[in-house]
Amino acid sequence: MTAYRLASIPGDGIGVDVTVEARKVLDRAAALFGFSLEWTEFDWSCERYARAGAMMPDDGVAQLSAFDGILLGAVGFPGVPDHVSLWGLLIPLRRAFQQYVNLRPVRLLPGTTSVLAGRKAEELELVIVRENSEGEYSAIGGRHNAGRPDEFVLQESVFTRVGVSRIIRYAFELARTRSARVCSATKSNGLIHSMPFWDEIFAEVAAEFPDVHSEQMHVDALAARMVQAPDRLDIVVASNLFGDILSDLAAAITGGLGMAPSGNINPSGEFPSMFEAVHGSAPDIAGQGIANPVAQILAAAMLVEHLGETVAAQAIRTAVDRVLDEGRVRTPDLGGTDTTERLGTAVAEAL
Amino acid sequence: MTAYRLASIPGDGIGVDVTVEARKVLDRAAALFGFSLEWTEFDWSCERYARAGAMMPDDGVAQLSAFDGILLGAVGFPGVPDHVSLWGLLIPLRRAFQQYVNLRPVRLLPGTTSVLAGRKAEELELVIVRENSEGEYSAIGGRHNAGRPDEFVLQESVFTRVGVSRIIRYAFELARTRSARVCSATKSNGLIHSMPFWDEIFAEVAAEFPDVHSEQMHVDALAARMVQAPDRLDIVVASNLFGDILSDLAAAITGGLGMAPSGNINPSGEFPSMFEAVHGSAPDIAGQGIANPVAQILAAAMLVEHLGETVAAQAIRTAVDRVLDEGRVRTPDLGGTDTTERLGTAVAEAL
Ligand SMILES: CC(C)[C@H](C(=O)O)[C@@H](O)C(=O)O
Ligand SMILES: CC(C)[C@H](C(=O)O)[C@@H](O)C(=O)O
Repeated sequence: MTAYRLASIPGDGIGVDVTVEARKVLDRAAALFGFSLEWTEFDWSCERYARAGAMMPDDGVAQLSAFDGILLGAVGFPGVPDHVSLWGLLIPLRRAFQQYVNLRPVRLLPGTTSVLAGRKAEELELVIVRENSEGEYSAIGGRHNAGRPDEFVLQESVFTRVGVSRIIRYAFELARTRSARVCSATKSNGLIHSMPFWDEIFAEVAAEFPDVHSEQMHVDALAARMVQAPDRLDIVVASNLFGDILSDLAAAITGGLGMAPSGNINPSGEFPSMFEAVHGSAPDIAGQGIANPVAQILAAAMLVEHLGETVAAQAIRTAVDRVLDEGRVRTPDLGGTDTTERLGTAVAEAL
Repeated sequence: MTAYRLASIPGDGIGVDVTVEARKVLDRAAALFGFSLEWTEFDWSCERYARAGAMMPDDGVAQLSAFDGILLGAVGFPGVPDHVSLWGLLIPLRRAFQQYVNLRPVRLLPGTTSVLAGRKAEELELVIVRENSEGEYSAIGGRHNAGRPDEFVLQESVFTRVGVSRIIRYAFELARTRSARVCSATKSNGLIHSMPFWDEIFAEVAAEFPDVHSEQMHVDALAARMVQAPDRLDIVVASNLFGDILSDLAAAITGGLGMAPSGNINPSGEFPSMFEAVHGSAPDIAGQGIANPVAQILAAAMLVEHLGETVAAQAIRTAVDRVLDEGRVRTPDLGGTDTTERLGTAVAEAL
């Protein structure tokens, strides 16, 4: 029996609530599909920061590096600046483990309706392939003339040939397993250094995949298309920032953020990959047992899929679909009054 | 009788088609409301670039500076790189004339339906106040190790205290004339230099306007809110790039890009302001007489409103509403078969 060593970092807020349920579902799937999971839990969080002055220990990266996969809840707490909570945990992990792909599949799940008028489930299924290691999210920059009227700030974006080509190539390879259509988000008319470079590499990689249909759109027009003609999109490849915006939008037109999973993937397998819901820690509803655990359960399915347990992954997705379709167990965001725990248990039982 | 000197730059593609109609409507409004318009037309365009090597003459800015206002069509033509067409005309004009406000009001017009399910017109009316002179659109940056595997590109964003505070203050002042609600787009969790600075100034300015309700959201969540709960938004203030994306999205959930006007405004009046549709030159449908002129006609209404002719501006908007509501004249994007000219004439007659 294959045994996997998994790290769990529930984090803050509803990250804790939903991670419990995702683990419950994974443990059940392991029992049913003949593999075993050995969990180690880490209390890295804003609470730890308040107590110990850092989101994670100095050797945090080293501690995680031997695991087969990481399940992350969410980090963030009011009063803790984002550059502490995120740049002290999520973002360094994404980078240290070369998780350069942020894979964000969305689809309209059964029993949910889109905010878009008249769109059917089959028209609303897309994958955002987001660059996850460089681009607009850069620590380079700073403030000049601080406190003076002529104060200004510089913020550098960094795009490397290595970074841009590997994410675009990943999108094209994924396209071969799906619709064979890739749309690249650009903004070369406004960002005249970074985006023409992105477009140039996109054209080079596209030429290696003559069997895949490729097109590019400015991110503004692409956001508009996502709500006007989402059926014309399948795989969208985008920079760190554009992928962030487009994937929230994609989640919003499908079931909402309560339903959208995300994988931070190191395709070479040299380092562990990390899976999380797209949503944040939602402090306003934390600890009340009302958060929707579906996004995190679907993230857990991506985790076992990444480990090669595709049958189990598919079974989890089917179980989620079945529970949502029946509609008997629904958290408040789905119009019901059930708890996080109740929905998690329903999915585990439906397996 | 007040006489205004206006510059018209039809530009390329459908920019030419729709500008003719907007001028027709403005001329009719002038005759009816007791002012006069003296037009000077400039052929600055990608065509001029092909012929003369530049989008506009070297002294283009000087030539325009004495006008009371500028009506711009759209620029862009296949084969002419955007950094030529836009950075050779639109963007330098926005900057030279200190048009630091890009005002983008959207509303669901009569006779049109939203792509969002069940949203009524009154829930879909918002204004994007976009920073228009700095931020992510910066010419600073470049390529290192060109042509080598370790090639990379830097793209600098520049945010100044002067630039950020004036756009935010404009939004708050506008809020006092409307709903008294301002939402700021941030991304301080990812862009850790520029956006915390933006947020800091937002908080400072908000403190000067205790009568205005203020909040901030990360741009990803804000894009999601725009499709999930647009009724909770009224004035959205955003950086150059975020404002660009959010305003296209806002246009998409209301009537589409054929309906969305935009003003590049120099609030001090020291320099001329410039009005244009949000849409581009759409080379694929140019010259066929099928483009929807409504966005450009509404941009023209913003122009005369900026000149102080508020009664005329309101009359133009009412005329547009009436024609759309009757639904007898509709361009193809509105589901009809009428021409650009026919719709322009109908609005002029409805005045
Ligand atoms: C053409 C382009 C540079 C421009 C912009 O992004 O500013 C356009 O999209 C707009 O919104 O006016
Ligand atoms: C929390 C934040 C830094 C993060 C991001 O923008 O990457 C989040 O929005 C996400 O999408 O994972």
